Amino acid sequence: MAKINIRPLDDRIVVQPASAEETTAGGIVLPDSAQEKPQRGTVVAVGPGKLLDSGSRGELTVAIGDVVIYGRYGGSEIEVDGQELKILRESDILAKVV
Amino acid sequence: MAKINIRPLDDRIVVQPASAEETTAGGIVLPDSAQEKPQRGTVVAVGPGKLLDSGSRGELTVAIGDVVIYGRYGGSEIEVDGQELKILRESDILAKVV
Amino acid sequence: MAKINIRPLDDRIVVQPASAEETTAGGIVLPDSAQEKPQRGTVVAVGPGKLLDSGSRGELTVAIGDVVIYGRYGGSEIEVDGQELKILRESDILAKVV
Amino acid sequence: MAKINIRPLDDRIVVQPASAEETTAGGIVLPDSAQEKPQRGTVVAVGPGKLLDSGSRGELTVAIGDVVIYGRYGGSEIEVDGQELKILRESDILAKVV
Amino acid sequence: MAKINIRPLDDRIVVQPASAEETTAGGIVLPDSAQEKPQRGTVVAVGPGKLLDSGSRGELTVAIGDVVIYGRYGGSEIEVDGQELKILRESDILAKVV
Amino acid sequence: MAKINIRPLDDRIVVQPASAEETTAGGIVLPDSAQEKPQRGTVVAVGPGKLLDSGSRGELTVAIGDVVIYGRYGGSEIEVDGQELKILRESDILAKVV
Amino acid sequence: MAKINIRPLDDRIVVQPASAEETTAGGIVLPDSAQEKPQRGTVVAVGPGKLLDSGSRGELTVAIGDVVIYGRYGGSEIEVDGQELKILRESDILAKVV
Repeated sequence: MAKINIRPLDDRIVVQPASAEETTAGGIVLPDSAQEKPQRGTVVAVGPGKLLDSGSRGELTVAIGDVVIYGRYGGSEIEVDGQELKILRESDILAKVV
Repeated sequence: MAKINIRPLDDRIVVQPASAEETTAGGIVLPDSAQEKPQRGTVVAVGPGKLLDSGSRGELTVAIGDVVIYGRYGGSEIEVDGQELKILRESDILAKVV
Repeated sequence: MAKINIRPLDDRIVVQPASAEETTAGGIVLPDSAQEKPQRGTVVAVGPGKLLDSGSRGELTVAIGDVVIYGRYGGSEIEVDGQELKILRESDILAKVV
Repeated sequence: MAKINIRPLDDRIVVQPASAEETTAGGIVLPDSAQEKPQRGTVVAVGPGKLLDSGSRGELTVAIGDVVIYGRYGGSEIEVDGQELKILRESDILAKVV
Repeated sequence: MAKINIRPLDDRIVVQPASAEETTAGGIVLPDSAQEKPQRGTVVAVGPGKLLDSGSRGELTVAIGDVVIYGRYGGSEIEVDGQELKILRESDILAKVV
Repeated sequence: MAKINIRPLDDRIVVQPASAEETTAGGIVLPDSAQEKPQRGTVVAVGPGKLLDSGSRGELTVAIGDVVIYGRYGGSEIEVDGQELKILRESDILAKVV
Repeated sequence: MAKINIRPLDDRIVVQPASAEETTAGGIVLPDSAQEKPQRGTVVAVGPGKLLDSGSRGELTVAIGDVVIYGRYGGSEIEVDGQELKILRESDILAKVV
């Protein structure tokens, strides 16, 4: 798992996309050619949670280390220390692999 | 019914689409060629419910094992252990078959 | 009136569209060629009502057996036991025939 | 004024559009060729009012018999007993003629 | 100023557009050819104010007789007793001339 | 600074756009040819503030005499006593020059 | 770091975009040719925070001097004393570099 030096804001989450080999090993096959399919990856950083109207922040339901499935077209791609990562909002995460 | 190792977030639901034969047997005919028609399937995983403004989560009205009818164009398709499944939000579920 | 084995979610309503003959008999003429005109039908199933912010559900103002007028383009068509039905939200219902 | 056997839902209102002669007599000229101009008509049925968040219904500010001016492109046209009527929401009504 | 027999609903306002001569006299030049420019006119009727969530109505900040500047493309044009008037919502009024 | 006889409504603000010379003198260069760049100007009139749900009005954070930077495409242009002015909402103001 | 004489409104933030060399040194490579990638920069001015419904202002989670990553297409570009800066809302900031 990548160790990164960025902290997302709000309910944003930084995900390291799974490589094709890892994905197959985990039993969930998401071939890179199937561009419309959701993507699998590992959470490497999480934000403080969404600021609620009450002034407190909503607790995130994913944590660093979780393997998640997310829509391929949500979020933004960034490159940190040569790694391609993705910054998404929690609402772009579809499910956790357990 | 498929046993799967993913947990949807929020009010999302994982559905295993009915095959053409099952659909006919249940009396509800949804031919695959009728692409604009809603689809029938079985709920195989449910999320914790939508986070409400009060901080609690809304109770889902569908449960694992329910047979549901849902819009064909909502949600995302994923493939788990060789099965084609669909992740939808509860609001994409039109009705339960009882 | 059709007896059906599906239960709509939320404030959804299942309507059996009136055939051309019934429509004429009731005095409200909605010719099938006038595609832009609202449609008349009979309510055959209703959902539990819309979930309100308070946690309770809003009471529906239509009931099984009501004859209703609804926009032709709202909702989804489904086929149950050989009958073509329509699933609509209550807000797509324009009026009741009394 | 038409007597009709339909009851609109929510804050919907059924209006009988004024014929060209009536319109001229009332001093408000809305020629049929001026398609972009609002239309004048008489209210023949009103709904129970909009359901508010509090659970009560908002009181309508128009009543059966009122002559109203409304946008030509809002609402839906229906035909009851051979009469062409219009179902609108109260918010589509611009003004009352007094 | 026109005396008219219509009462706008909600926060709507009826304005009598200024003729080209009046506009010039007031020092604010809004040539008719400059179609993208706001328009100047006199308020001839006002509604009861917008219905608030609390059930009361918001007080309007313009009154009959006020000279106002409004966006040319907002609202609807109506013709009453041979006069071309405009029905706008209060939010379409940009400023009062004082 | 222009003295004008109009009072904006709500949270609207009237700005006198800076001429090309003034802009350069202040160190902020916003050439007229760079049409996509924000514009600099001086506030010449302010509204009473936005009406809040509580019934009171939000205090504006700009005052008459402030030099502000605003998006070129927001608001409406008006001509008062031969001067070209702009009416904007406070939310269209990006920053104050201090 | 640039010292600038402008104060953003609301939850706006002024960022000095990193030059290509700085970006490489920090380990986060965001080549200018990759136009769809987020951009890195240093916060040089912050607004008072977003006005909440309660009347108070939300505390910003970024401060002057923070290095931030932001979407390339958000915000507006301004030129102050010959420097190209960007005015963004806090919600356009994806992450802080720590």
